[in-house]
Amino acid sequence: MVDAWLQNFIEDIAKIGAGESGMERLAFTESDRQARQYVINLMQDMGLAVREDAFGNVIGRLEGTDPHAAPVVTGSHIDTVPEGGKYDGIVGVAGALYALGKLKARGPLTHPVEIIIFMAEESSRFGFATMGSKAMAGQVNQTLWNRAKDKDGMTLSEAMNTFNLDLANIKQAVRNPGEIKAFIEMHIEQGPVLEATGNKIGVVTAIAAPTRLKITVKGFAAHSGTTPMEERQDALVSAAMIVLAIQEIGFAESRHGTVATVGNLIVQPGVMNVVPGLVEMWVDIRGVNHDSIIECLQDVKDAVSSIAESQETPAAIDILASDKPIQMHEEVRAVIAEAAKACGASYQDIHSGAGHDAMNMALIAPAGMIFIPCRQGISHNPEEYADPADIQIGADVLAEALYQLAN
Amino acid sequence: MVDAWLQNFIEDIAKIGAGESGMERLAFTESDRQARQYVINLMQDMGLAVREDAFGNVIGRLEGTDPHAAPVVTGSHIDTVPEGGKYDGIVGVAGALYALGKLKARGPLTHPVEIIIFMAEESSRFGFATMGSKAMAGQVNQTLWNRAKDKDGMTLSEAMNTFNLDLANIKQAVRNPGEIKAFIEMHIEQGPVLEATGNKIGVVTAIAAPTRLKITVKGFAAHSGTTPMEERQDALVSAAMIVLAIQEIGFAESRHGTVATVGNLIVQPGVMNVVPGLVEMWVDIRGVNHDSIIECLQDVKDAVSSIAESQETPAAIDILASDKPIQMHEEVRAVIAEAAKACGASYQDIHSGAGHDAMNMALIAPAGMIFIPCRQGISHNPEEYADPADIQIGADVLAEALYQLAN
Repeated sequence: MVDAWLQNFIEDIAKIGAGESGMERLAFTESDRQARQYVINLMQDMGLAVREDAFGNVIGRLEGTDPHAAPVVTGSHIDTVPEGGKYDGIVGVAGALYALGKLKARGPLTHPVEIIIFMAEESSRFGFATMGSKAMAGQVNQTLWNRAKDKDGMTLSEAMNTFNLDLANIKQAVRNPGEIKAFIEMHIEQGPVLEATGNKIGVVTAIAAPTRLKITVKGFAAHSGTTPMEERQDALVSAAMIVLAIQEIGFAESRHGTVATVGNLIVQPGVMNVVPGLVEMWVDIRGVNHDSIIECLQDVKDAVSSIAESQETPAAIDILASDKPIQMHEEVRAVIAEAAKACGASYQDIHSGAGHDAMNMALIAPAGMIFIPCRQGISHNPEEYADPADIQIGADVLAEALYQLAN
Repeated sequence: MVDAWLQNFIEDIAKIGAGESGMERLAFTESDRQARQYVINLMQDMGLAVREDAFGNVIGRLEGTDPHAAPVVTGSHIDTVPEGGKYDGIVGVAGALYALGKLKARGPLTHPVEIIIFMAEESSRFGFATMGSKAMAGQVNQTLWNRAKDKDGMTLSEAMNTFNLDLANIKQAVRNPGEIKAFIEMHIEQGPVLEATGNKIGVVTAIAAPTRLKITVKGFAAHSGTTPMEERQDALVSAAMIVLAIQEIGFAESRHGTVATVGNLIVQPGVMNVVPGLVEMWVDIRGVNHDSIIECLQDVKDAVSSIAESQETPAAIDILASDKPIQMHEEVRAVIAEAAKACGASYQDIHSGAGHDAMNMALIAPAGMIFIPCRQGISHNPEEYADPADIQIGADVLAEALYQLAN
């Protein structure tokens, strides 16, 4: 039987930030604040001690019987991409709250258990992903974060101020290796594998790391009616060539599980009667095979230089992020597999194409992830969907795994 | 010797709306208002009777000796594209003011002479070009104008309200055929022809009309890390193919003087971690050969359907504007040529690739245009430049032509 609480939680929190088309709860916005408060209230009702760290990560803690034991930690995020779905992030928060309820009912644990709501997991607002867990794992590039701005020109620092937080204090959010016994995040797969195999639980083996680029193409802005075709340096024409080159490179490397995407492109001055003078474009390359990512990156660089030269439109590439794929911890993977067995849930190993907070947590604690199926692998889209029964199975497996780790 | 007043005027008005990179005086904005007021003050100082019509076109009038005679009219615009130059539009306003000064000094005229500062000549803000002269010539598509919005979502109607104007009253701006004896606009060429031939005056024979399209490409927004390359419907990839197809079509038709440009492209949701789900793009096709424009339009339609089908990304084309090239009036052309001769200025016939208010004025009055050279044909760009001596020659020819027409 499906637990009504889980489904109610998902439907209720989806009322916060519901837009015309899907969900929109960008980090450090009013809807983010409301959703955080909603979860904080639930945590307090459950008797958890709740605190917020220097980056705004919310931490709810259930004490164990051993006051010196390191906490077992679970959690995920509540921020969304623009026009996002109801399940990405939320399922892991719902599962964590549900699991804590089950653990409390089951009796005292030796280790404390914590739920973390990570701040700013999605890169949609400031261009950096999993910021909350980066802050916690001491992985902040202070120089870049000081410069980070959203589309409207608001800096990260200013956005943090609206939450009474100070970017200058971000080091206070750091937790050291050894402080946390283990970390587990439950999440929708965001891919088609579990649906295809029919398995209910994915035990994540590794997380693909995104390599992110900004490419700037400089053309020459000119009158669209009077500038002959052969005299143009049209930045958008070059950018279009780059988009197609990246698509081709992604296809070539897809045999290694690598994907490449141009997610955004901005034209300046961007009006109908001017030949585009400047284009900025943002590229996301992901995979679990590090050599393939390196190959992909080199091919993109070569393609961009060759297009820039042939079109006489100089182009620059900024590498915004370039991380290695992260392995999940063997023991945590084993605990998750045992928990799935104990719950009678079919399971399999799987890798994650998407980045997750677990990726950073893995740097300071043994970490693992539980994936559950989602319909057609659709995510970051209003049509994202996970079956309530599958969420329930995931949450039961999470509860069992946390129980094993906390005793 | 170059008249200091002309150059001072151009430098002074360039202080209004000077941005980081070039000029920005979009229609119905504060900088537009300030520049208008600056010109109105000059007109009043010259003793002209100044009024504003129902769309905000400024009309300064010098009375003639015959109270029943139809006015001879000149003028241009003061709005700019974003990151525009100091000469587009302004040169025609400067020339008109300078010419009126000369005419006044030369003694009474039979016909009244009017200077018009046309509102919203550039399409940059609301997507419609030469709006002021369209209003005057009764060429307004009320349904489309009611829906017109700028990038920030402000409607044309709301923008007009900030100037104490009401879009509902726009018909009051109409002037009927026969009311105006003749219209002449002076303008920089915005193309490379006069600089190449060394002639100082272009007598415009015809004005290319823009055909404008909005193309919307629908893909499927999906997670950029977890969606395999072969399962994507990436709207930006299709849009990139369309950009290159339009470029190729423009090249093919350029033998007839036709050009095709994608001036802007907007990606939704437009973030690094989502495969683009929707792209809107704006296309500008221009030429003086109507058959070539029709051919070009058909080729664009064919390319868009074929890309939409092969990529499984449905695409729609909205035709925003589709006008025929406009011929300049033979007698007005002859007067301009005679005036050039009288001033000792070398001149030649030329066609205009850019649209101008003269295009709409030609529907209600015999109309002509005087082009002057500009450096490297650059326009709609901060590097736009016209030699003060060339501006002077143009203004002298304009004064002479107006004198001939007004007596």
